[in-house]
Amino acid sequence: MTLPPEFALIARHFRPLAGHGALDLSDDAALLDVPPGRQLVLAADAMVEGVHYLPDDPPETIGRKLLRVNLSDLAAMGAAPLGYLMTTVLARGTPDDWIAGFAQGLAEDQRDFGLTVLGGDTAATPGPTCLSLTILGTVQPGAVLRRGGARPGDDVWVSGTIGDGALGLRVLRGELPDDAAGHLAHRYRLPQPRLALGQGIARLARAGMDVSDGLVQDLGHLCRAAGCGAEIEAAAVPLSSAAQKLLGANLALLPTVLGGGDDYELLFAAAPEAQGPLREAASRADVPITRIGRMVSGPPAVSVTGADGQAINLARGGWSHF
Amino acid sequence: MTLPPEFALIARHFRPLAGHGALDLSDDAALLDVPPGRQLVLAADAMVEGVHYLPDDPPETIGRKLLRVNLSDLAAMGAAPLGYLMTTVLARGTPDDWIAGFAQGLAEDQRDFGLTVLGGDTAATPGPTCLSLTILGTVQPGAVLRRGGARPGDDVWVSGTIGDGALGLRVLRGELPDDAAGHLAHRYRLPQPRLALGQGIARLARAGMDVSDGLVQDLGHLCRAAGCGAEIEAAAVPLSSAAQKLLGANLALLPTVLGGGDDYELLFAAAPEAQGPLREAASRADVPITRIGRMVSGPPAVSVTGADGQAINLARGGWSHF
Repeated sequence: MTLPPEFALIARHFRPLAGHGALDLSDDAALLDVPPGRQLVLAADAMVEGVHYLPDDPPETIGRKLLRVNLSDLAAMGAAPLGYLMTTVLARGTPDDWIAGFAQGLAEDQRDFGLTVLGGDTAATPGPTCLSLTILGTVQPGAVLRRGGARPGDDVWVSGTIGDGALGLRVLRGELPDDAAGHLAHRYRLPQPRLALGQGIARLARAGMDVSDGLVQDLGHLCRAAGCGAEIEAAAVPLSSAAQKLLGANLALLPTVLGGGDDYELLFAAAPEAQGPLREAASRADVPITRIGRMVSGPPAVSVTGADGQAINLARGGWSHF
Repeated sequence: MTLPPEFALIARHFRPLAGHGALDLSDDAALLDVPPGRQLVLAADAMVEGVHYLPDDPPETIGRKLLRVNLSDLAAMGAAPLGYLMTTVLARGTPDDWIAGFAQGLAEDQRDFGLTVLGGDTAATPGPTCLSLTILGTVQPGAVLRRGGARPGDDVWVSGTIGDGALGLRVLRGELPDDAAGHLAHRYRLPQPRLALGQGIARLARAGMDVSDGLVQDLGHLCRAAGCGAEIEAAAVPLSSAAQKLLGANLALLPTVLGGGDDYELLFAAAPEAQGPLREAASRADVPITRIGRMVSGPPAVSVTGADGQAINLARGGWSHF
């Protein structure tokens, strides 16, 4: 009795990724003990070929990005990783080598981030490959970081640098010149979930989230959740040297940097007196954090101020002074 | 500041499905307390338009089927539903009406099965719609039903009737005549997860799973997990009257019935002395169960015996006597 190719594929590529609770991917479901005294944190993100990643991205980085964008949601809640389930709906004719590379990338990140696969499903589609991952993490009750809770007067902070992912996508599309080190493309393909930082700041910040859809839009979410506004200074937003170089040559890239998405940095609001402890937490997590503005009274809107102190109008879909 | 259509879609259609732990689908992740003293059971299944459902299936039944095939995995483990996460990657141009119907179907089944959505993701694809759902359930430690553990001499049982889903698909494709009541198409579109039965038999059966890929193939999984074989009698396999009628007119449909999949019934092995308690559990769950054969010593293979007592050969990909 021979099994359909689906089972051989799972046995060859995905079973080696299975860990505690996965029942060797041979049962109908996984069986998991949640550590006592911890709350479960759960998120799911999908990635579609040609939409969330480029068809010629290396399969290793596609697997790792799928895991990392989900880990970033755990980071945003201050949670620690526990495990994941994954459904891979593969474009018909996907070569076995591609699946091997995809699984290899997952294996590397499983080791780096300390989690294993619990279960999932594999199928084929006549359309583009469609990947979906559900991540499980845990948090100590009371130590969870939520989106709501920011107050007027709070500082607004971000981790790392902003805009690299969005610029990296444009580099990979041939729309922008590559930087020598390939830093921007690397940041697009391999976001860095800020797990240690998220856990470190969870009790210090009043509100937080990860930046996945663009800094300004995501800060708008924090504003709506808090019922107040936010002001940020464009010049204060931390940029990598590669992004600085591109932006120095072409200021019209500002919308890409501040609105382009794919950052997977943490964005959070905290009382001014939390500054010291926040900087200590960031130092322990070895991730730079930068104060870029503050929460203000008023309607839930984000205003961005240019280097000249004048507001930059986002409403026209681009960057232009009033 | 206007939000992208994705957020409006989630707010309009999916937020009403959110319950405890979902944080109103407004945070980066869900936050869940697992009931004390329970183990978590987790599974994920994907459904692709044109592969797992027909493009012209009603969106209400597509949503319900997505939930039910996952609930069936919980049933197979003897678990009770807790919640789910879902990613909907919709074909570009999917009408709002379709999404409303899809969500309406989910809402109905959420009420019927006692669970709510915890989180997920929504995106668009140039290909066919690709749906993925991760289900969470809980089980009392020690009361979980696993695939391994069957022994030679155990009875092999199934719940409900077999073959309706596979025949229903062929009816919907116009390959077979419709039954007057539309029973077969209904069974294809709306499988019935056997949750109460699964929980009732978990401590009585030695091994169990749900039948999703076809009775014979899935029984092969039980065999491999147990390291023994199984013999079933074709005439003992329970059929609906609609299936009986089609099969009576055309015996060549036997492979569709026994190998076609989409049954979502429970298949389990139990010691002969468990027969009485199993029948009581089935009666309490109000689901018929039928003994169709037994586990036997030998290699992990399934043999099917015809009404004439002779073995039916599956190896040729169809049904033919040796």
